[in-house]
Amino acid sequence: MIPTEFNRKIAEIRDDRVRGASELARRALEILGQAAREWPAATVEEWREGVSALSVEVAETRPSMTPVRNLLGRWRNGLERDATMGLDAARQAATERAQALIERSSRAVAECASRVAELLGPHRTLMTHSFSSTVLASCRLLKGAGLRMIVTESRPLEEGRRLAEHLSSWKVPTVYITEAQMALFVARADAVLVGADSVLADGSAINKAGTSLLALAAREWRIPFYVACESFKWREASDPPPELEEMDPSELKVPAWPGVTVRNIYFDVTPARLIGAWIDETGVRRNAAQ
Amino acid sequence: MIPTEFNRKIAEIRDDRVRGASELARRALEILGQAAREWPAATVEEWREGVSALSVEVAETRPSMTPVRNLLGRWRNGLERDATMGLDAARQAATERAQALIERSSRAVAECASRVAELLGPHRTLMTHSFSSTVLASCRLLKGAGLRMIVTESRPLEEGRRLAEHLSSWKVPTVYITEAQMALFVARADAVLVGADSVLADGSAINKAGTSLLALAAREWRIPFYVACESFKWREASDPPPELEEMDPSELKVPAWPGVTVRNIYFDVTPARLIGAWIDETGVRRNAAQ
Repeated sequence: MIPTEFNRKIAEIRDDRVRGASELARRALEILGQAAREWPAATVEEWREGVSALSVEVAETRPSMTPVRNLLGRWRNGLERDATMGLDAARQAATERAQALIERSSRAVAECASRVAELLGPHRTLMTHSFSSTVLASCRLLKGAGLRMIVTESRPLEEGRRLAEHLSSWKVPTVYITEAQMALFVARADAVLVGADSVLADGSAINKAGTSLLALAAREWRIPFYVACESFKWREASDPPPELEEMDPSELKVPAWPGVTVRNIYFDVTPARLIGAWIDETGVRRNAAQ
Repeated sequence: MIPTEFNRKIAEIRDDRVRGASELARRALEILGQAAREWPAATVEEWREGVSALSVEVAETRPSMTPVRNLLGRWRNGLERDATMGLDAARQAATERAQALIERSSRAVAECASRVAELLGPHRTLMTHSFSSTVLASCRLLKGAGLRMIVTESRPLEEGRRLAEHLSSWKVPTVYITEAQMALFVARADAVLVGADSVLADGSAINKAGTSLLALAAREWRIPFYVACESFKWREASDPPPELEEMDPSELKVPAWPGVTVRNIYFDVTPARLIGAWIDETGVRRNAAQ
């Protein structure tokens, strides 16, 4: 049985519609760090089973978000070794591992943003879709260097607002549009830069619904299309393809018309062939097939 | 000077965000019919100048909407002959001409819908974007024949709601999505059917922003993409390309972030090469280049 407090925290991860995959993975690791310290258990084995089950449950709340899966999996892999220690030592080791993975993920995002800034250089107009902490970090690095941005509102919950607020506070000249206008504006960009929630082993990117439309428009206008994300977002070929999460249709805020089914799939798959390069903390990988 | 009442009616046409181009053209003709009867004038020449100027002004309120231009132009062309009559006879002839053009446009939409229904046949799933009276009329004809629809909300003002309401009342099974999900759903359709506000002489279609994204997605998935509209929507090669109207950015309902420019262009251009066939009241013209 999962203690009530952690049930509440699982719900927090499950219901979050604002944070990107890396941020949520780090938040999930914080929760696991706390569980490592506080999980009620009389023996180290009871503790291991409890926090391990919790980590599986948290990971399964967001199947489209590979960093949640990968970072939590890595944390969980260490539990077996932890359990060879006494309970107090195990609690401490697991807490420290969570903290180390959080730091590693944060550093990876920052390093990835540095690679993006090197690749794109100053005085660029970039277009993006939805909210990505890697894109945000890239913008932070480029904001003093003549950066201009084109951002989409990103229905239904409009994460684009959050990005626009940051860009406004940094005085980055920004154009804010509906998804419907993506084809009208992509040709005004020097490049498209998006994050990803997951990257499949073949390089196809799972990101907020609408990303693949922007990739199609970018190809049409011959605008380079880049996917930037930490390597924890990549899936192994042996991993099952992640489910494309569907959220509550009430987010579209329409009446319940009889016979009308409101759909609210949050993610789509941008095929690798539409992607010009992938950027992670280790460097830039150009698409040889393009 | 345009009498106050007609200034109000010009504003009605200019500010309308709900009706499609054909509907608005017919509404504009009603206004001109009323002006023909009531325009204050002492001589037939004064009358002709007044109503002619009004018709130009009304047409210029909606430059993207070719039927407004074409039908009002056709009505205006008759004014010279009207002005060879006495004032009362001229008023009557111009009123009747407005009525005849309204009927001709309505008939053209209905005939166009019949051609669509013949082309597509029963038991089809069709996807559309925004609201088109021709698409609506086509759905009315097909609703007893196993029609299923996929409709987009069509930001910012969500004309898709109006279509969903009709389809619901007709018991047509309908899926309602955000624009962002278009790539996820296009492959579930047998064909895409959209209206147009204008068709350029080369066949490129000007329609609600987002249409060209749907066309790109349809090509990617090899789903036929059809444009259905009355022939009054076609522009001559000698016509200047219509401006893509931009509406009030407040329609996006976001705060005024310093340095962020909210754009709200209503229309985009779908290149002819992405269109499988054009359907008007005279028949189906397949794209020989596809």
